[in-house]
Amino acid sequence: MTKSDTSVTVIGLGLMGQALARAFLKAGHDTTVWNRTPAKADQLVAEGARLASTVGDALKAGSLTILCVTDYPAMFELLGAAAVDLNGKLLISMTSGSSTQAREAAQWAEQRGARYLDAAIMAIPPAIGTAEAVILHSGPQSAFEAHRPTLSALGTVTYLGTDPGLASLYDVAGLAMMWSVLNAWLQGTAMLRTAGVDAATYAPFAQQIAAVVAEWLPGYAEQIDRGAFPAEASALETDVRAMAHLIEESEAVGVNAELPKLIKAMADRSIAAGHGGEQYPVLIEEFGKVNT
Amino acid sequence: MTKSDTSVTVIGLGLMGQALARAFLKAGHDTTVWNRTPAKADQLVAEGARLASTVGDALKAGSLTILCVTDYPAMFELLGAAAVDLNGKLLISMTSGSSTQAREAAQWAEQRGARYLDAAIMAIPPAIGTAEAVILHSGPQSAFEAHRPTLSALGTVTYLGTDPGLASLYDVAGLAMMWSVLNAWLQGTAMLRTAGVDAATYAPFAQQIAAVVAEWLPGYAEQIDRGAFPAEASALETDVRAMAHLIEESEAVGVNAELPKLIKAMADRSIAAGHGGEQYPVLIEEFGKVNT
Repeated sequence: MTKSDTSVTVIGLGLMGQALARAFLKAGHDTTVWNRTPAKADQLVAEGARLASTVGDALKAGSLTILCVTDYPAMFELLGAAAVDLNGKLLISMTSGSSTQAREAAQWAEQRGARYLDAAIMAIPPAIGTAEAVILHSGPQSAFEAHRPTLSALGTVTYLGTDPGLASLYDVAGLAMMWSVLNAWLQGTAMLRTAGVDAATYAPFAQQIAAVVAEWLPGYAEQIDRGAFPAEASALETDVRAMAHLIEESEAVGVNAELPKLIKAMADRSIAAGHGGEQYPVLIEEFGKVNT
Repeated sequence: MTKSDTSVTVIGLGLMGQALARAFLKAGHDTTVWNRTPAKADQLVAEGARLASTVGDALKAGSLTILCVTDYPAMFELLGAAAVDLNGKLLISMTSGSSTQAREAAQWAEQRGARYLDAAIMAIPPAIGTAEAVILHSGPQSAFEAHRPTLSALGTVTYLGTDPGLASLYDVAGLAMMWSVLNAWLQGTAMLRTAGVDAATYAPFAQQIAAVVAEWLPGYAEQIDRGAFPAEASALETDVRAMAHLIEESEAVGVNAELPKLIKAMADRSIAAGHGGEQYPVLIEEFGKVNT
């Protein structure tokens, strides 16, 4: 283990905060930690971390400070105490929150003389410190680039843009994709199990379809950015017949049809709005609308 | 173009039927076609196809017969005519229908002395004849294997099992995956556009998430087949907090939240059924239930 010249501070030692501090220690960084219940730092101290007695002391020790607390109000409470000097500090929040909270936090920090990056961790604690852990960052680019080598100890770090709300938005968008792939697979698995096909037999097929369709996205994105949706491969009014068929088949074999019905409902609305002769990405107009 | 010794018949010359006949011609097969409106065969005849004057004559000409008609009732009507002798013939239906219709058609054909394969084409007509066109087959394996080299002229041909309903079930399951990946991408795209991120910028991120999650499916399938769902990576009661967050973020930025709400509703039901401490694939129990 070589010693790095960048000192880091980690505030908040839940399972994730502990994993972050451990990854910094392993990469050779001087690591200072703080937690409301100090006993949570015991194992990290045994591994070489320094336990600060106050939040203010913890902030003084690191050239960057990672915040991994319960939520944004908890962060404001800790950092807003009179004895804490944020001036000139770099704060990186890895706390889960909304894009609005991230933007508010950035403004709050800047008013106190600090630079602020908002980060979203797309990984579970055991993956931290491996390339599998994707960590998204948004906020001032110079602050990110200056600390990219240090942050790389945590996993695959990515910079999204100056709007501090981006990390949160990409995070939830990615989760929507994750659950959608899993749900579509569960829908198919439930249907095929009625014909005696086990989940392991169907999984590689579902995997292949998801990967193939994922490859279409950049091309479909061009239609959205142009705002023109010519039916090069298939028209929505043709797709919707196959959607009806998916619903009928789900119901015929006795599995839940809510997901198929939502798929068709959104397409039906787009057709009702006059887009039946256009291609699937025209549905962006329905997804962009509040309709609940 | 070399001449093949396997003669084929294609009945039904819509856009898809024409594409199938053309692919057989290009692969050097003697190809006989029939269509209710004979003029639809003109171009194929110019390319070397033989136009049969009756369905019975068409069936006599081919060592296998592809049916690509509007629906199953249309197929029964054509093949059920008194003058049509099905005895000893191999029928492959590429007509869209349900697993129940496929099983009924297989029984109907077998009662008339024919062997029957049900097929589902996962491609648009212009892709026929290329590896990109995936064609699923189910029914007697010996019939499929005997004609696999001939069918390979159409694209990537796959055999699923003896149950003739499988091609239809895999087909709709694959479509559910296709629309789910597209919808999750549209959800994320709609959210990110509110922050000024264009679709082309977000697409590679969505593509990567979909591909990564697809790789989890075989492992998750083992949990389903074992019927045990230990929370190795994450427990459902943790996931559901992030789902609530996805709904809140969608609503906060003013985009449709129906898809996020359905995701959470299914997870909530599973938690209510006592599975909050288990891992995501336990939701198979909700997908397997009728709840509409």
